[in-house]
Amino acid sequence: MPKQIAVLGAGSWGTALAMVLADNGHNVRLWSHNSNQVASMNVSHQNEKYLPGIVLPGGITVYESMEDAVRDTAAVIFVVPAKAIREVTAKLAAHLPADAVIAHATKGIEPKTSKRVSEMIEEELQGVDHRPVVVLSGPSHAEEVAKRQPTTLSASSVDMEEAQKIQELFMNENFRVYTITDMVGVEFGGSLKNIIALGAGISDGLGYGDNAKAALITRGLAEIARLGTKLGANPLTFIGLSGMGDLIVTCTSVHSRNWRTGNMLGKGMTLEEALDQMGMAVEGVRTTEAVAELAQQAGVDMPITQGINQVLFHGAKAKDIVDQLMTRLPKHEMNDLQDVLNTR
Amino acid sequence: MPKQIAVLGAGSWGTALAMVLADNGHNVRLWSHNSNQVASMNVSHQNEKYLPGIVLPGGITVYESMEDAVRDTAAVIFVVPAKAIREVTAKLAAHLPADAVIAHATKGIEPKTSKRVSEMIEEELQGVDHRPVVVLSGPSHAEEVAKRQPTTLSASSVDMEEAQKIQELFMNENFRVYTITDMVGVEFGGSLKNIIALGAGISDGLGYGDNAKAALITRGLAEIARLGTKLGANPLTFIGLSGMGDLIVTCTSVHSRNWRTGNMLGKGMTLEEALDQMGMAVEGVRTTEAVAELAQQAGVDMPITQGINQVLFHGAKAKDIVDQLMTRLPKHEMNDLQDVLNTR
Repeated sequence: MPKQIAVLGAGSWGTALAMVLADNGHNVRLWSHNSNQVASMNVSHQNEKYLPGIVLPGGITVYESMEDAVRDTAAVIFVVPAKAIREVTAKLAAHLPADAVIAHATKGIEPKTSKRVSEMIEEELQGVDHRPVVVLSGPSHAEEVAKRQPTTLSASSVDMEEAQKIQELFMNENFRVYTITDMVGVEFGGSLKNIIALGAGISDGLGYGDNAKAALITRGLAEIARLGTKLGANPLTFIGLSGMGDLIVTCTSVHSRNWRTGNMLGKGMTLEEALDQMGMAVEGVRTTEAVAELAQQAGVDMPITQGINQVLFHGAKAKDIVDQLMTRLPKHEMNDLQDVLNTR
Repeated sequence: MPKQIAVLGAGSWGTALAMVLADNGHNVRLWSHNSNQVASMNVSHQNEKYLPGIVLPGGITVYESMEDAVRDTAAVIFVVPAKAIREVTAKLAAHLPADAVIAHATKGIEPKTSKRVSEMIEEELQGVDHRPVVVLSGPSHAEEVAKRQPTTLSASSVDMEEAQKIQELFMNENFRVYTITDMVGVEFGGSLKNIIALGAGISDGLGYGDNAKAALITRGLAEIARLGTKLGANPLTFIGLSGMGDLIVTCTSVHSRNWRTGNMLGKGMTLEEALDQMGMAVEGVRTTEAVAELAQQAGVDMPITQGINQVLFHGAKAKDIVDQLMTRLPKHEMNDLQDVLNTR
């Protein structure tokens, strides 16, 4: 049965997810904070800035008013950048239907507080009658989803009935959604992979090859798993779709913003220059800062994250850091991996 | 102290490994079964066929006689294709110095017997006084190693002192070797990734995108881990350098033979046509056959391997198989991953 669903955020990923829901017959209200974008998308039925050349299916209406967008909806999907999550949630709180399914598809960890996106949403909805938040995450270039190419994601929540509702809303022949109980692991994996994508970009930018990059990705996943497991995740989640799967897509694609930013750093640009050239949010930069601090507090060894943090914020040379990382790995590989399981 | 070391097999990987040893000051005898190659390499100091444009360092002599190559050596490194391992080992057995360190850097599982490469070597050396075999494996394009780009590998053996000797012989600033105790996991991971590389090539050949490929790689590693763990490997090995690391390099590089073969299959060629065009050993084809049988005997569910086996040997259409794989995944992701650990 067709439902009213609000998708908050009309970037490439929000737009692609709106398309999946519209393909499934739902009425989608896509909210954008940008009034120019609202007008142009409702006329052209395209998202020229973020998904150029793709025609949106019928059933998507773009809204400027968040209040109108969420009124009487059966589900609300957050797809705004992590740094806007609190503000958007706070604005929305008074208008949220109490029985709406709530999900987010946003990557990021908040600096200072180290909160995951679902925790930020829950905090901003305190005192408001609402359902538990679902996270939707996995290996997914928005462009491919918009072209109906086969894609698989994981949905997780503290309340698995909510995750199943999201699975039902989104699932179709090209877009497969699997449920998984470990919400902490899904959110950590999806967010922390952006740090490793920065590192993969740096390695490529320095002119190192696939061997070095594969080692960095592999060791990167091990340290993500080490921290995540310490903070309550199941280590197996990190070898699933939302962990390793998403990491591979992000680290091996020249389309990834985080990879591209890292690549510029590897070629010798400063962070300011690289971000200037990108001209859009690069989630991994904030996440690196947040996680470097979190790892220290938690007493977890994360040499790759700490090294990238040094490059981003403390003037370290990318080459020195990567060379150091390649030579400082433990002499015995398994001791280190065994640590991941031992922290369970 | 410089040592006499024999490297058996002058393909791209054997030659690159010989270069690492020569860089470390050792005297390397590189054995080739091809007398034309022996003559040309000793004159040109290049391996024009497999590493064009690369000049070999001093200290490498190419041998046509295996008996001469292994005489009084401190170490013998097998880098011949898996299907030649038994024959080469049998020929060598009478000439092998009893105190030589023995290692192999060959990927593959033997059809019918399902033996790993170290098991084949041990069988052929039965009755001959020799040391336990070491395996050297990890994410490593030969071309990058030959160009001294940073590379990391794992060394494993049932006797860790032997693995440490290999670590010491090969380790240098660009070529990092880590020891790991799980030999079964290292050999399975390195060999079975070629099956998944065929699958990744098929997916790309069909025109599917990075999202589909990442899902296939992720689910592929899960089924490799499931079989390997059932047969005695440590599941953690599969998220290490010789598992996930090598898998990433193989599945995301257009240089991989297995990926290229899969790509041709995805585009509609028959196996015969694709192998004809490749003109060299494609290890994953034999490995798929061996592992499909092994999985059935062991009662382990390996849908990706079985599907690729159907495409390779039983006339199934690549598109039907990949579409089936994308839609048949379990509804609940973690149940399936948990199985990996539960088989421990």
